[in-house]
Amino acid sequence: DEALKVFTLNSNVNLAAQIAAEIGVPLGECSVTTFSDGEIQINIEESVRGCDIYVVQSTSAPVNQHLMELLIMIDALKRASARTINVVIPYYGYARQDRKARAREPITAKLVADLLQVAGAHRVISLDLHAPQIQGFFNIPVDQLVGVPLLSDYWSAKGLNDIVVVSPDHGGVTRARQLADRLKAPIAIIDKRRPKPNVSEVMNIVGNVKGKTAILIDDMIDTAGTITLAASALIESGANEVYACCTHPVLSGPAMDRIQHSPIKELVVTNSIVLPEEKQIDKVVSLSVAPLISEAIIRVHEELSVSVLFD
Amino acid sequence: DEALKVFTLNSNVNLAAQIAAEIGVPLGECSVTTFSDGEIQINIEESVRGCDIYVVQSTSAPVNQHLMELLIMIDALKRASARTINVVIPYYGYARQDRKARAREPITAKLVADLLQVAGAHRVISLDLHAPQIQGFFNIPVDQLVGVPLLSDYWSAKGLNDIVVVSPDHGGVTRARQLADRLKAPIAIIDKRRPKPNVSEVMNIVGNVKGKTAILIDDMIDTAGTITLAASALIESGANEVYACCTHPVLSGPAMDRIQHSPIKELVVTNSIVLPEEKQIDKVVSLSVAPLISEAIIRVHEELSVSVLFD
Ligand SMILES: Nc1ncnc2c1ncn2[C@@H]1O[C@H](COP(=O)(O)O)[C@@H](O)[C@H]1O
Ligand SMILES: Nc1ncnc2c1ncn2[C@@H]1O[C@H](COP(=O)(O)O)[C@@H](O)[C@H]1O
Repeated sequence: DEALKVFTLNSNVNLAAQIAAEIGVPLGECSVTTFSDGEIQINIEESVRGCDIYVVQSTSAPVNQHLMELLIMIDALKRASARTINVVIPYYGYARQDRKARAREPITAKLVADLLQVAGAHRVISLDLHAPQIQGFFNIPVDQLVGVPLLSDYWSAKGLNDIVVVSPDHGGVTRARQLADRLKAPIAIIDKRRPKPNVSEVMNIVGNVKGKTAILIDDMIDTAGTITLAASALIESGANEVYACCTHPVLSGPAMDRIQHSPIKELVVTNSIVLPEEKQIDKVVSLSVAPLISEAIIRVHEELSVSVLFD
Repeated sequence: DEALKVFTLNSNVNLAAQIAAEIGVPLGECSVTTFSDGEIQINIEESVRGCDIYVVQSTSAPVNQHLMELLIMIDALKRASARTINVVIPYYGYARQDRKARAREPITAKLVADLLQVAGAHRVISLDLHAPQIQGFFNIPVDQLVGVPLLSDYWSAKGLNDIVVVSPDHGGVTRARQLADRLKAPIAIIDKRRPKPNVSEVMNIVGNVKGKTAILIDDMIDTAGTITLAASALIESGANEVYACCTHPVLSGPAMDRIQHSPIKELVVTNSIVLPEEKQIDKVVSLSVAPLISEAIIRVHEELSVSVLFD
């Protein structure tokens, strides 16, 4: 289709190129650089007038830079008479600041939704939002794609035996259940408890893991504290082997060190966030979400339901 | 007044402290840090309910970080029931992207105005906006303070003789005129011309500078190319000495090197942008805008006109 154009900013250049290739269009011509003082400079180098534009950009680290690139690009597209501006945000940053947990906290995930809308976005396509409520922060359509099928296909192909799918906390049980259903496996849950204030947490495991192959699943892994402690607890409780997977490899601070020294045999992630070279260690396998996202873009563009991509 | 509180973010901590001291209030308790993955975390540590809040933050480099701090702070203040949220932005970043100079450019200065408003700002107090039109990008009151009186007082006290005030380009003539009036001096203008394409610019000087003490003035100095070339042209045209001043010392990239090796004897700036240690060289004098801004805040808070601060 002539009217569909895919542009990339700086967060996920390879993913965007894969998406454009799957759709069968060239990546839109655009340069995204910074002036000497660090201000972002965007030059869109082809006409977008009357086009349906898909801009691929995760708001991963450096999050404020990536978010501003996206907002400025939306502004430029709007002023250049794009027909629709569809933002593809594989990893939605600031998603954990989605409620006031304490007095006088911001709700930055909602602020970001407002910023995208005031800039001029018409639609958001995202993947495994940290909280499904974030859809409700927008007054424009939000298509939320799901990473579980991709992860599940990987584990199926690997041919592991006697699997138990493990959620590292109570919040992740639904996701663990989805993976377990696809792998026809039981689930277990890590039940963290602090017996008394100022006493360290006890990792209690609900479910049977003895002699089994455990696969931990979470939506994102940031500093990897939770997941590596969970892995150790599983081994202590008699699991044979521990694997782990998540959609969004944030992997900040001590994460790589913790993963390297943990009993996790393999960590499977997606390319919603680019892994810099120092994080591309043997243990880490990255799967591409390009087929999933390009399928979603084609369906959105043809005004078909994308809900078929959810299962 | 009980209801007036001044908060600082990370761009101008000392300036904010000076402003609070001039007003006679303590700086509001607030921590602005980053999580391990680089996302901004703000904790407002005292009640702001029903208060008139003044948040001091320049959107200087790192501009995207500083802007997001400000937006998130506004969001937090709004949700914490502040009565009014007044943002004091001594240096308004992205101000040079205030029009479409070419096809498909963003107008980021307008985008920033929209972002501040959607976050919840009620009023902006700024200083020497790069273009006065930026006031019109807002639908809330914008008080624009002027740096010329501060600079003029400095030059008067210095007791220079036979001054000519020089604008480094046509855009700055109004500002040069204001300084010249205060110093009771004539003006000159650097008239850059490119005789043919791909031939370097000729610096022609309109006005008499021979044997005079030239004071260059601009609103901001970024890479310092224009101002240092202007200084050399003035010396070549027979000026005795060249001084320079500006409100906003952006001073990025090659700026310090150029200034150091230029004929500029002294560069006078304000603390609208903090000078890191490596930029605090002997030639550079920084004046505080704290008295000007605190006076503006007091007048705004007492619902008095701030226009008296413009001359
Ligand atoms: N970037 C971040 N890194 C670590 N913690 C965060 C981040 N953003 C928000 N939080 C905190 O994480 C908690 C929410 O996480 P969760 O319970 O997993 O939804 C809240 O208490 C937030 O203050
Ligand atoms: N941060 C920046 N650094 C250098 N040039 C810029 C910056 N932002 C915008 N510009 C360009 O500066 C020009 C406007 O500057 P001026 O003519 O001084 O208003 C436009 O062509 C902009 O593209």
